[in-house]
Amino acid sequence: MRWDFTSRVFETEVKQFADTEERIVRGGRDRFGLLRDAFEGVGQIGVIGWGSQGPAQAQNLRESLVGTDVKVVVGLREHSSSRADAREAGFTEDDGTLGEMYEVIRKSDLVLLLISDAALAENYEKVFGSLKRGATLGLSHGFLLAHLRNEGRDFPPHINVIGVCPKGMGPSVRRLYVQGKEHNGAGINASFAIEQDADGRATDIAIGWSVALGSPFSFITTLENEYRSDIAGERGILLGAVHGIVESLFRRFVDQGMSDDDAFKQSTESVTGPINRIISHDGILAVYNGLSDDEKATFGRMYSATYPTAYGLLAEIYDEVASGNEIRSVVMAGDRLPKWPMGNVAGTRMWRVGEGVRAQRVESEIPLNVEAAGVYCGTMMAQIDLLLSHGHSYSEVCNESVIEAVDSLNPYMHANGVDYMVDNCSTTARLGTRKWGPRFDHIIQQDVFTAFDSDDEIDDTPLRELLAHTVHGALAVCAELRPAVDISVVV
Amino acid sequence: MRWDFTSRVFETEVKQFADTEERIVRGGRDRFGLLRDAFEGVGQIGVIGWGSQGPAQAQNLRESLVGTDVKVVVGLREHSSSRADAREAGFTEDDGTLGEMYEVIRKSDLVLLLISDAALAENYEKVFGSLKRGATLGLSHGFLLAHLRNEGRDFPPHINVIGVCPKGMGPSVRRLYVQGKEHNGAGINASFAIEQDADGRATDIAIGWSVALGSPFSFITTLENEYRSDIAGERGILLGAVHGIVESLFRRFVDQGMSDDDAFKQSTESVTGPINRIISHDGILAVYNGLSDDEKATFGRMYSATYPTAYGLLAEIYDEVASGNEIRSVVMAGDRLPKWPMGNVAGTRMWRVGEGVRAQRVESEIPLNVEAAGVYCGTMMAQIDLLLSHGHSYSEVCNESVIEAVDSLNPYMHANGVDYMVDNCSTTARLGTRKWGPRFDHIIQQDVFTAFDSDDEIDDTPLRELLAHTVHGALAVCAELRPAVDISVVV
Repeated sequence: MRWDFTSRVFETEVKQFADTEERIVRGGRDRFGLLRDAFEGVGQIGVIGWGSQGPAQAQNLRESLVGTDVKVVVGLREHSSSRADAREAGFTEDDGTLGEMYEVIRKSDLVLLLISDAALAENYEKVFGSLKRGATLGLSHGFLLAHLRNEGRDFPPHINVIGVCPKGMGPSVRRLYVQGKEHNGAGINASFAIEQDADGRATDIAIGWSVALGSPFSFITTLENEYRSDIAGERGILLGAVHGIVESLFRRFVDQGMSDDDAFKQSTESVTGPINRIISHDGILAVYNGLSDDEKATFGRMYSATYPTAYGLLAEIYDEVASGNEIRSVVMAGDRLPKWPMGNVAGTRMWRVGEGVRAQRVESEIPLNVEAAGVYCGTMMAQIDLLLSHGHSYSEVCNESVIEAVDSLNPYMHANGVDYMVDNCSTTARLGTRKWGPRFDHIIQQDVFTAFDSDDEIDDTPLRELLAHTVHGALAVCAELRPAVDISVVV
Repeated sequence: MRWDFTSRVFETEVKQFADTEERIVRGGRDRFGLLRDAFEGVGQIGVIGWGSQGPAQAQNLRESLVGTDVKVVVGLREHSSSRADAREAGFTEDDGTLGEMYEVIRKSDLVLLLISDAALAENYEKVFGSLKRGATLGLSHGFLLAHLRNEGRDFPPHINVIGVCPKGMGPSVRRLYVQGKEHNGAGINASFAIEQDADGRATDIAIGWSVALGSPFSFITTLENEYRSDIAGERGILLGAVHGIVESLFRRFVDQGMSDDDAFKQSTESVTGPINRIISHDGILAVYNGLSDDEKATFGRMYSATYPTAYGLLAEIYDEVASGNEIRSVVMAGDRLPKWPMGNVAGTRMWRVGEGVRAQRVESEIPLNVEAAGVYCGTMMAQIDLLLSHGHSYSEVCNESVIEAVDSLNPYMHANGVDYMVDNCSTTARLGTRKWGPRFDHIIQQDVFTAFDSDDEIDDTPLRELLAHTVHGALAVCAELRPAVDISVVV
């Protein structure tokens, strides 16, 4: 069994995903009693950074560890503007739960390094040098490993290096955890990775961290597979692709004579609304199965036109990430941004229209556009197949291509706009979306719509493979591992 | 003097570009008598490949060397589909001027390696192993050096390695050479680079090659500076940027209510027509100077909005090229393309409109759109400043950012469409245009047009710097070095 591990503290389960078995750990509040054992020897957890993951993880950990003697302390730069926010969340200098980041690192047994990628690239040597003997270094995605490889460097030897990587952005990790008080087990799934296990405790510390964050189920990966699927995924269906898809659809519908408002509803609203809801509740195939025969033909034509085009572009993204290029790009951008800052996507006509449409929204009246469904599902399935072809586990593929999209990101985009998400996500994701979103937009216009609108037959192999795909069963297994709770986005 | 060299055969001149001096060699048919001396010891020149540069260089060399005993032989793969074209151009197996590429390499004293970048990456080891003792390896751009660096490899020692890099695509190298029969000195400028000089003859062989191609003037660079400026330039104003610019302008004008035809005329036709012609004949400043006061204000606002946005994106392109990322991407694409081929840009609404507009074109009636001029000139100047900031010579900057655009590429795009150029250029350029064109399109919409259309003031520093820029004088020096001949594109 490739995706296997041993826990001395937590009950594990082997799940069958298509023809492969994977070991996982189920979460839930009833497991919080095991956390003290999992964190044996850990007196202080330092949560370093207050960006997207920082506030969510610090608060979830603190609440999950109530009743234990494990102290959760937030570490920030001396003059960080986030100090006020951390204090408002109840982390204060007075009670010793808020301090200068290197002070906190020096005193923590488990250091969760949740600073920005640019800050990671800039400060990792000092961080490594500040870790106390026997400390465990925790990461919430694999960026640092990728960067170290580009630089020809390694993690310090003789320490534990683990990853716990929630498959959703920080605010959703927090929001579903809070909802989990009413619905035991609600939360964002997480992968965990054991990059270095110096003392044999790394696995249980990692699972403990994941369970304490509220992960409904935790699955094992490697930090390498994590950054490949995570960085490629956010440039793909999670954000970059969805941005390009809705831009191309909006323009298509305007060109066909729709009003701006209608074009926005048939494109963006349709994707982040009804299409997303169906996939979240009943899976990808349910989108197709709910259509009339005529609609199925339209969907199939658009789906089959989209799939190979999206696959080719996603394969390029994956190669760029795996080769180190994409990480080098992010690091180089860090040097340019002070002089040439990123602009916003929000100012263009389409997104000004979107603001008005959302203000007048009647949720039940949002249309399900069949062409939009074909493009969106075709891109999502292409990402699934691409990640599977690169040896990622079903757990990782389902979370990184479907669950994170429909249960974490799209609901926020539905509430605030895709443009808001693009302009306010992490720098790495924002750079990636501004890089790959336009590529999806252009290539969908150039290759997909022209093929769809032509009189030529389109090879329907992709559609036929969709109908018989193993991922549907795998998603059903994932769905059984957590309660059916929709995230309630607080705007 | 940084850009200096010594020739034993050719007369050289020192030119003053702004505050720097550069040594150059003037070309022209009256110099062809020196070629025998320049090619001392060279009995056979092997021209390997029949893509863009191959046909032009093989034919120009053959004609320039008439009356000498230097034989020009074309080398192609055994079953190359280009054999028929080479025969049609008069290179035949029968008279020994056409042969299998490795046969030709083994027998040539000067090997001009003009195969595609993908073929270079795949075959360089066998090529190196086939070179005869004392041979000179000639390249027409620096791609191979960049690829060798990514691979941690070197050129074989003890041979000459030179570059002669025409600042125009092959068809224009050929076309202007033919026009040069009527107008002595007409041609495409070329840079030359001496990467390895094993026998002290490399410089004169390089200059001889350049003069024989018909270069009006030849300037020295390094192969590293060549690939940086060449690959960044084609992703910038030469092709990628111009594609993105006209896409964004067309959509802007349609959104403002123009008919499709008018929007195409005000965007693409305007750029490749009158704006290009003014820059070609009288320089960049002449575009501005020819405007009314109101138009100058409009131009200035758009120019100043464009410049920093374009600079930031061009800086990203340059970093990607200089870091090796862009070359790695091209090589990785070579592995994907057989399975996921590139599509075409030509099928979209805009380019179908363009086809109709060109068919009805009355050249004298093409409008000069002031906004289009602002975006185009702002991007061109940003590229100029970026390349200067990276230490490229004025000769290289002027050729790679202005002369190649207005005197080689834009005229072909004007004749056949920007879309045709994008879909039919070299694989490396095509990949780059499909990668960066959409970026320019989106960022111009998002950052430039929103700023231009807002009520906010726009910092006019870029415009003020344009008016006093040193590049105008440098371009005037370049203009004096060649006859004022417009390329006559044969469609």
